[in-house]
Amino acid sequence: MEQLRIPGPTPCPENVLQSMTKQMINHRGDEFQQILSGVTAKLKQLFQTKNDLFILTGSGTGGLEAAAVNMLSPGDKVLSVSIGVFGERFASIAKQYGADVIPLRFEWGKAADADAVRKALQDTPEIKAVLVTHNETSTGVTNDLASLSSVVKEFDKLLLVDAVSSLGSLNLPVDDWQCDVVVTGSQKGWMVPPGLAMVAVSPKAWEAYEKAKMPRFYWDFGKARSYFEKRQTPWTPAVSIVFALSVSLDMMLEEGLPGVIARHARVGKAAREKAKSLGLSLFADEKYASNTVTAVAASNGLDIGRLRKIMLEEHQVVLAGGQQHLDGKIFRIGHLGWVTEDDIETVTSALKISLPKAGFKS
Amino acid sequence: MEQLRIPGPTPCPENVLQSMTKQMINHRGDEFQQILSGVTAKLKQLFQTKNDLFILTGSGTGGLEAAAVNMLSPGDKVLSVSIGVFGERFASIAKQYGADVIPLRFEWGKAADADAVRKALQDTPEIKAVLVTHNETSTGVTNDLASLSSVVKEFDKLLLVDAVSSLGSLNLPVDDWQCDVVVTGSQKGWMVPPGLAMVAVSPKAWEAYEKAKMPRFYWDFGKARSYFEKRQTPWTPAVSIVFALSVSLDMMLEEGLPGVIARHARVGKAAREKAKSLGLSLFADEKYASNTVTAVAASNGLDIGRLRKIMLEEHQVVLAGGQQHLDGKIFRIGHLGWVTEDDIETVTSALKISLPKAGFKS
Repeated sequence: MEQLRIPGPTPCPENVLQSMTKQMINHRGDEFQQILSGVTAKLKQLFQTKNDLFILTGSGTGGLEAAAVNMLSPGDKVLSVSIGVFGERFASIAKQYGADVIPLRFEWGKAADADAVRKALQDTPEIKAVLVTHNETSTGVTNDLASLSSVVKEFDKLLLVDAVSSLGSLNLPVDDWQCDVVVTGSQKGWMVPPGLAMVAVSPKAWEAYEKAKMPRFYWDFGKARSYFEKRQTPWTPAVSIVFALSVSLDMMLEEGLPGVIARHARVGKAAREKAKSLGLSLFADEKYASNTVTAVAASNGLDIGRLRKIMLEEHQVVLAGGQQHLDGKIFRIGHLGWVTEDDIETVTSALKISLPKAGFKS
Repeated sequence: MEQLRIPGPTPCPENVLQSMTKQMINHRGDEFQQILSGVTAKLKQLFQTKNDLFILTGSGTGGLEAAAVNMLSPGDKVLSVSIGVFGERFASIAKQYGADVIPLRFEWGKAADADAVRKALQDTPEIKAVLVTHNETSTGVTNDLASLSSVVKEFDKLLLVDAVSSLGSLNLPVDDWQCDVVVTGSQKGWMVPPGLAMVAVSPKAWEAYEKAKMPRFYWDFGKARSYFEKRQTPWTPAVSIVFALSVSLDMMLEEGLPGVIARHARVGKAAREKAKSLGLSLFADEKYASNTVTAVAASNGLDIGRLRKIMLEEHQVVLAGGQQHLDGKIFRIGHLGWVTEDDIETVTSALKISLPKAGFKS
């Protein structure tokens, strides 16, 4: 069987896949209302939040668009803290809807620096909101969100967090870290297929919502809130993925959030150690290396394209390449969700054989 | 087993449900590219179109939002031809994004009148686009889209069509009827779970796209087009629902589009005839009665809420109620997708027993 080691979609446990053979039900009937209610309550535990939490039908990018359009007005100054492709994407969305985006970019492979964020907030007091990527999937870097959040909150700004590839895998206490809107996607650590974005919305975010003037309809948090009072969603939700999520959340709660986070930490460390033991260079600053995705830099003659092809064709291991200007420069090993150290062992064994064939001289 | 007789989500055939137990794959890898390419080609056959066709991850309402934001600019005059809840929804979306919506409303239960549309277009020559619901799910009425389209095209306006509950069930030759953007949803006649919206975009629509200034990111047709050149989607798609769609489209093509349409016509007629034989009153003008959903008006002491409860609890038949001001005034029988005359027979038998218990005096 294929080893899907990209940072999403992630492999789904067998009972999660089986849960989707359940026949469709009325999405406005009692049974679905109970499921939606249960899933939402379980998600709140894993988000470590008492905030409102909504399940939107769409990709993670849709969740990011929802965060922007519900919180901002055209012309609002927004600080974009960006360390890679997904930081840039979040900024592009805000810009597209007319926000005045002030970019604060850090070198790809490095984390954001809290002092630089402080300086940016001092320089432009009119900034209304700060966009932060918790875990940058494109570079394999996890930002120190606790520190960034405390700076943002020194200035009492809105904090909008892309946690697509971190929530449910890395520690992210949404309330303690005062995240106003936080967004994740079903196909990441949650071990279910893509199709749902999950968002939590703080009381401060609701205040911003009342004043925000960007146009919104499908992603409108207010509509989500009023329908959730009836345990419904405004539009027909991806019912089968909600079934799947219900099963995977039970698995996660059985393991316990500390257990889930510790496992990702062990697996992440194993991925980095094994890569180094093969003579490979890690792309990301190890201090901030992600426990959900490891980026490996091309070095010593390694042809990334060839390596990925050999890994796929000869070992059925699917690795991710680099995005945008990192194409051909890095490959990435996804290790979030339904993953253990054994999976890293499998990847390592395959890499050991494949690397020399792909030009790598250790 | 429950008989799900609402107008979506519709029941899924067993092999469609089973197809979703397939493990996740790389949504940017060869296998998925082939699946996406195949599904898109099959959809084009069933849409009867050579236009571009995109699969978006979201509900049908997301598809309607996509149609509006890709075609229009704030301030554009738009004629909204509305015969029910979904006509109003399409108009609300356009309005929300700043369009100057001119409402042309017809009595609920009736179809739109082509002459009235002509008059509206004559009265306001600056109208840029016309919004039309092909099949109004809330009232069980199918508009005569061929006639409406020929009027819209007399004036060379853009025609944006909500075909969420018609395409794949009713005849809608997208190219012959010159639909510029046409939108449908996976959980209707397509026999798969909710989570995907499918849209076709005409050459004339692409011209409008170039000038349209409403903000868009997630729903951007241009991004969908450039990724489709690589047989990909811009954002991670709902992979498992694409698997399901691939299977259901094969079933539909095996039956053949004329066969699918004829079956819906037979089933729709059976639903109306059986309802009348029980002494019930049809809500919709029979001339325009929909072959995908039948709306029945409360009459002769019938308590709709009680009827739906009895049908569910004693016969496991799930009927839909009325929406908005039709709540308590009508019930609706969905008969689109995986449905035959036998299903209508089951509903009829259950109604026969339940109607007197719900106060109905025939």
